[in-house]
Amino acid sequence: MTENTETKTTADTEQSAPTPVSVLGLGPMGRALAAAFLAAGHPTTVWNRTPGKAAPLAERGAAVAETAAAAAAASPLVVACVMDHEALHSVIRPAAEALRGTTLVNLTSNSAGDARETASWAAAHGIDYLDGAILTPTPSIGGPEAVYLYSGPEALYERHGAALAALGGTATHLGADPGRAAAYDAALLDFFWTAVSGYVHALALARTEGVDPSELAPFATGIVSVVAEVAEELAQETESGRHSGEEANLRSALAGIDHILGTAEGSGLDNSVLAAVRALAARAVADGHGEDGISRLVETLARPSS
Amino acid sequence: MTENTETKTTADTEQSAPTPVSVLGLGPMGRALAAAFLAAGHPTTVWNRTPGKAAPLAERGAAVAETAAAAAAASPLVVACVMDHEALHSVIRPAAEALRGTTLVNLTSNSAGDARETASWAAAHGIDYLDGAILTPTPSIGGPEAVYLYSGPEALYERHGAALAALGGTATHLGADPGRAAAYDAALLDFFWTAVSGYVHALALARTEGVDPSELAPFATGIVSVVAEVAEELAQETESGRHSGEEANLRSALAGIDHILGTAEGSGLDNSVLAAVRALAARAVADGHGEDGISRLVETLARPSS
Repeated sequence: MTENTETKTTADTEQSAPTPVSVLGLGPMGRALAAAFLAAGHPTTVWNRTPGKAAPLAERGAAVAETAAAAAAASPLVVACVMDHEALHSVIRPAAEALRGTTLVNLTSNSAGDARETASWAAAHGIDYLDGAILTPTPSIGGPEAVYLYSGPEALYERHGAALAALGGTATHLGADPGRAAAYDAALLDFFWTAVSGYVHALALARTEGVDPSELAPFATGIVSVVAEVAEELAQETESGRHSGEEANLRSALAGIDHILGTAEGSGLDNSVLAAVRALAARAVADGHGEDGISRLVETLARPSS
Repeated sequence: MTENTETKTTADTEQSAPTPVSVLGLGPMGRALAAAFLAAGHPTTVWNRTPGKAAPLAERGAAVAETAAAAAAASPLVVACVMDHEALHSVIRPAAEALRGTTLVNLTSNSAGDARETASWAAAHGIDYLDGAILTPTPSIGGPEAVYLYSGPEALYERHGAALAALGGTATHLGADPGRAAAYDAALLDFFWTAVSGYVHALALARTEGVDPSELAPFATGIVSVVAEVAEELAQETESGRHSGEEANLRSALAGIDHILGTAEGSGLDNSVLAAVRALAARAVADGHGEDGISRLVETLARPSS
C-alpha cells in the first residue's frame, strides 16, 4: 500500500512540474524518445556525439548540450539510447562526475550481462541505474502501441515511472536484477526473427506453387493466432516439466515437418532454417521423446548434441 | 448471381434432407469429421482399415462399412482422411468402381503434386474430386475455430459446400487447381513450425538468464501481434518487388540477430535454427541488399547460394 501511495504522489508531482530529462543519443530512436518527453511537457536537454541531429528538437523547445556531461548535469533523469553497449560506455564514462546523483535509464540494446556490468559501474559512481528495453519500432514511441521493459531497483522505477510514462504505451518493471529487461528482449527478438524467417520462407514456398503473397497473408494471421494459443501451453508445460504429447507429439510433428521439407526441397529454395528445425525435432525423437509434447524441445535445445 | 442462388438452393436442400456422407479413415481426425457429420444430422457411413475405431460412432448412429468400396457405395459424398497420400491410394484404387459418380473430398495431408495426381486419377475414373486441408487441430473440428481450405472445381465446391459446413468453422475455396489447398497448407505449416521453434528457443534462452517460461509467455503474445502486422506488409512488398528498407532494413536486422546469436552462443544452447536465420540475413546483405527491407529475403531464399 505504501508503494502505491508513493507512486501516486510522484505522479501528482509530475503533473504539476514535469521532471527535467536529458536524452543521450539522437539516432532515430533517441530522437523519438526526446520528442515524446517534449510533447509531454518535460524540460528536455538533448545531446548527440555528432551534431546536426538536434535542430528539429531544438525548434520544439529542447536545450542542446555541447557534451554528454553537460546534458547529464542539466537533469535529474538521464535517458541513454545509443548504438550499443560499447558506445554507451564511451559516452557515460567521461560523464561519470556529472551523472553522480542522477538516475540513468539505459534504453540502449544490450545483453543481460552488459546491463549488469553497467549497473555495477553506475553503483560504483553513485549513479542510480535502471536498464530498459524497447520492444516496438520507432514509430510507436509516444503512442499507445509502444512496449517498454525495465529492470533495476523497484523504488527507483516507482520514483521515475510517471516521467517514463511520457514515452507512451505500456511499461513493465520486471524486477531488481538489472539484466532482466535485456534477457526478455533477447528472447523475444529471437522469437521474432525466427518467426519472420519462417514467414518469408512460407511466402517463397507458396510462390513456387503459384500462390501470391497477398493470397497467403490472410491465412498467416490465423496461424499467428494458433502460435499465440500454444505459446501459453508450451510455457506451462516447460515450467512444470510435464511435456504432454496427448494433443500433439514430437513424432507426428517430425512427420509433418519432414513432409513440408520434402516439398520445399523439391522447390529449389534455400531451406536451411527449416532443415535446422527438422534436425532439432529429429534429435528429440532420436533421444526417445517422440511421444512427448512440443515443449520437450526446450530441454533438447538446452543439451546440444556433442 | 447465378452461383449465389445455386449455393442457397443447395443449402435449403441440405436443411430439409442432409446429404449422406461416408468417411474413409478413422484416425483421431477422421473420427472427429464423422462425429461432426453425425451431429449435423447427415446419414453417415464410416470405414477404417483396421476395425475397432467405429464403435463410438456406431453408437451415435453411424453405419459401419466392411470395406472402403461398401462405404463409397453408400453415399454420394465421400470424405477421406487417412495417414498420407500413399495410404489414400491404397484405399481408393481398389474402391474405384464404387467411387464412380461420387464426389471424393480428400482431407488427407498431402502435397500440391499429390493432390493433382489424385485429381487426375479421379477424373480418369469418373470421380468428382475436391482436395482439402485442415489448418486447425482435431479438437477444433465441428466448432467455430476450425479452418478448412478447399481446391478443385468451383461448381463442385458449391454443390457440396452446405454439407461440408457441417464440419464447422470457416472454409475457403481457393480455386480450380486441386493443388492449391495443399500448397497453402505446406506454406502455413512451414511458418507455424519455424515460429514454434523460435518460441521454444526463446523459452530456453530466457531460462539461461533466470526468466521463467510463464514470465516470458505474456510478452510473446505481443511479439505475435507484431508478426501479424508485418506479415501483411511483407506480402505486399514481396508482391510489388519494392523492398523498402525505410522502417527496417536488412543491415540493422543482421546486427540485431548477430547480437542475439552472440548472447545465445554464450548460453551453451543449440542455436542451429537462429544461426541459419543469421546466415540467410548475412547472405542477403553480402549480396548488396543491406539497405533493402526484410521482404528481400523472399528473393534471397529463391536463389540458394551455390
